[in-house]
Amino acid sequence: MARRLVIIGGDAAGMSAAAQARRMAPADALEIVAIERGLHTSYSACGLPYLVAGLVESPDQLIARTPEQHRANGIDLRTHHEVTAIDCVARLVTVRNLSTGQESIEPYDELLISTGASGITPPWPGIDADGVLQLRTLDDAVEVERRLAAGAPRAVVVGAGYIGLEVAEGLLARGLNVTVIERLDAPMGAVLDADMAIDVADAMRAAGIDLQLGTAVTGFATVDGRVTAVETAAGPVAADLVVIGLGVRPNVDLAKAAGIAVGKAGGIIVDDHLRTGTPHVWAAGDCVESRHRITGRSVVVALGTHANKQGRIAGTNIGGGDAAFGGVLGTAITRFQGVEISCTGLTEREAAAAGFDAVGVTTEASNRAHYFPGAQPMRIKIVAERGTGRLLGAQIVGGEGAGKRIDVLATALWNEMTVADVGGMDLSYAPPFSPVWDPVLLAAGKVASQI
Amino acid sequence: MARRLVIIGGDAAGMSAAAQARRMAPADALEIVAIERGLHTSYSACGLPYLVAGLVESPDQLIARTPEQHRANGIDLRTHHEVTAIDCVARLVTVRNLSTGQESIEPYDELLISTGASGITPPWPGIDADGVLQLRTLDDAVEVERRLAAGAPRAVVVGAGYIGLEVAEGLLARGLNVTVIERLDAPMGAVLDADMAIDVADAMRAAGIDLQLGTAVTGFATVDGRVTAVETAAGPVAADLVVIGLGVRPNVDLAKAAGIAVGKAGGIIVDDHLRTGTPHVWAAGDCVESRHRITGRSVVVALGTHANKQGRIAGTNIGGGDAAFGGVLGTAITRFQGVEISCTGLTEREAAAAGFDAVGVTTEASNRAHYFPGAQPMRIKIVAERGTGRLLGAQIVGGEGAGKRIDVLATALWNEMTVADVGGMDLSYAPPFSPVWDPVLLAAGKVASQI
Repeated sequence: MARRLVIIGGDAAGMSAAAQARRMAPADALEIVAIERGLHTSYSACGLPYLVAGLVESPDQLIARTPEQHRANGIDLRTHHEVTAIDCVARLVTVRNLSTGQESIEPYDELLISTGASGITPPWPGIDADGVLQLRTLDDAVEVERRLAAGAPRAVVVGAGYIGLEVAEGLLARGLNVTVIERLDAPMGAVLDADMAIDVADAMRAAGIDLQLGTAVTGFATVDGRVTAVETAAGPVAADLVVIGLGVRPNVDLAKAAGIAVGKAGGIIVDDHLRTGTPHVWAAGDCVESRHRITGRSVVVALGTHANKQGRIAGTNIGGGDAAFGGVLGTAITRFQGVEISCTGLTEREAAAAGFDAVGVTTEASNRAHYFPGAQPMRIKIVAERGTGRLLGAQIVGGEGAGKRIDVLATALWNEMTVADVGGMDLSYAPPFSPVWDPVLLAAGKVASQI
Repeated sequence: MARRLVIIGGDAAGMSAAAQARRMAPADALEIVAIERGLHTSYSACGLPYLVAGLVESPDQLIARTPEQHRANGIDLRTHHEVTAIDCVARLVTVRNLSTGQESIEPYDELLISTGASGITPPWPGIDADGVLQLRTLDDAVEVERRLAAGAPRAVVVGAGYIGLEVAEGLLARGLNVTVIERLDAPMGAVLDADMAIDVADAMRAAGIDLQLGTAVTGFATVDGRVTAVETAAGPVAADLVVIGLGVRPNVDLAKAAGIAVGKAGGIIVDDHLRTGTPHVWAAGDCVESRHRITGRSVVVALGTHANKQGRIAGTNIGGGDAAFGGVLGTAITRFQGVEISCTGLTEREAAAAGFDAVGVTTEASNRAHYFPGAQPMRIKIVAERGTGRLLGAQIVGGEGAGKRIDVLATALWNEMTVADVGGMDLSYAPPFSPVWDPVLLAAGKVASQI
């Protein structure tokens, strides 16, 4: 008789696991049931800001695989169904059909929890008002579109992290007046040191965004239940549309209720094979904690890259293979109009907080040979450990071709290189692509000479 | 009394060494004399094709530092002077002033040989004809420009390697009819396997180049000493201008005559500190052999990146510091119009020739999320060792943002990673920059699943 895998949550991690388990084990060896609360599966949440911006024309384009495609692949996918309880002893889950309200009990041999994360919504008065939105799901994007069509000239974005930046860019492209309110003194505060964030703030303001830094939101003014302004410590900001972009929190209530261990960072604890501490229960994606390769600490990094990788790894292991997740560095990239922004590892501030004797050095460089048409400046900040010279992290802000250079530094970081070694590597050079000393080499060499 | 460093050759390696030695040691500790045959120093030879193309407006833009700037930096730079002999026992060099013909004897405490390389010119009948050129120096570029101004509608480029491709692109941009003649069956034969070179050949032909592969040049037809056609085994090709792009050979005659050891690959033998086997004699740049990190063999890789690094390292060591050259991977990049081409490590053919049980797997991928505007395809070929999964090399051909991804693989190669480990790395992702599985991860994962 076939073993039975039940997957809770049909997005990146869950459906990657389903597809990979299907590849590993045929239907007569492994039955795969995936339960998804919503109507969609496997779509690119990271593409939502570009849908809002009008760069992506239709929500359909963001869908990598439809429910029908998954079903054709031999996965028993049940959309608009929700798991309401897990019994880890009897190996059962309780499933509610959200269309009919009917409940059923489903047995499992293996269970994968891939419940994702939800946007953080502080208990601010008025946060549930009409016109205060998140941008986490396709339905959210459709709702933003509806508001824009109805006429909403003044938009406020709360939070100047990745999502805040991307949504602000998108709304600006749609012709709105855009204000971004950020509690910290700089945008991208979680991933950039303040000295690097200056270029981002400048670019936002130059584009016409009213960027209010160091400003705490206190609530929302409403008329007839509809938002009219964001209240801040510095006064109200009129708003027809508010998008909250304050990061996410893992969805772990279901796991917690079932006695599955959750860590201090708020995610489900898993080993490198994505096993939880509970037998036959696995977890993957935005709902789990991962090992940070530099600090060794457990962290929640809710990114599609990890969700996809972890899903595939869980699927491999559940399907009878052997794969391990190597941990995270915190590598990320985004852009604001022509400014590319990326990071990996620890910022100087994070490195100090983690107990490293850290040095941060910023280098100005060019994306092409200085004489080549279209050469644009970039700044690279490299953080290294004093004494050992060990690379701890890097940040890049600059023009075309700047951002993706972070992957070279991420690879160096993955291999625990010193900055001196990084500075000596054999990277590619031709005038249309870099100066003879690639900015990465230049930046690493500069740090190496100072520690 | 100050020690005396004499440098033979004032281009990338020589002047990098001079500048670095100057940083390390003040003038009263180290006198630096640099002897340069030509009139220019420290210019970007790699920029010459773009000067021909008209993308770079003036030869001056290619000059990183003028002789005057070097002199102002405390370097006794003598242009239009040539070293004709080295006496390693008495520590003397014979210098000829090319303007006056006068010879003088210069003593040295340390000697750096950075004599560079010269373009290969086979002993074909007519190769010295008027209109048959190289593109190795600023003077060469000026000569090409003179020919174009005089009217030379039909250009033939001999060799479809880096220089051949770049010159052909440039001449095409200037409105010429361009034929490229290549002895091998594919362009970029030294760095791409034939299956990857197909895209390059297609792009060249689509751009209007008459690409003649598998065609051996036998000589040149001339009228009144002026080239009129390139003779090939397949018949003559009419030509008003011929550019030879057949690679280079290290300039080692001077070193050889002085008894300094030259290796089988044709370059001066140096250790990782850039010392030759002869006391107090150092060498750096295009004239030396370097250790290939994958094969362990001594190779000549004449690239500006290595010349600059080696010059700096030699300067550091001569100036009293301690630096080592880490070897080469053969990383390189170029483009033909919109097609980016890059490589690192060994091709499948080279890997087999070096005795590896090698597997080469090609992956099609996209430079952006598939739904993002401007997404362009790329192909990545990864070569790995069967059994161990060790990464041996990679090649990329594709649209915008494809080429520089080679640096990630070069960094992985530098660290002797397996393809499975590469496939699990934490690289950056956002829809404008890559699919959720970056092409590098995708390609590495695909190879890992097949070996």
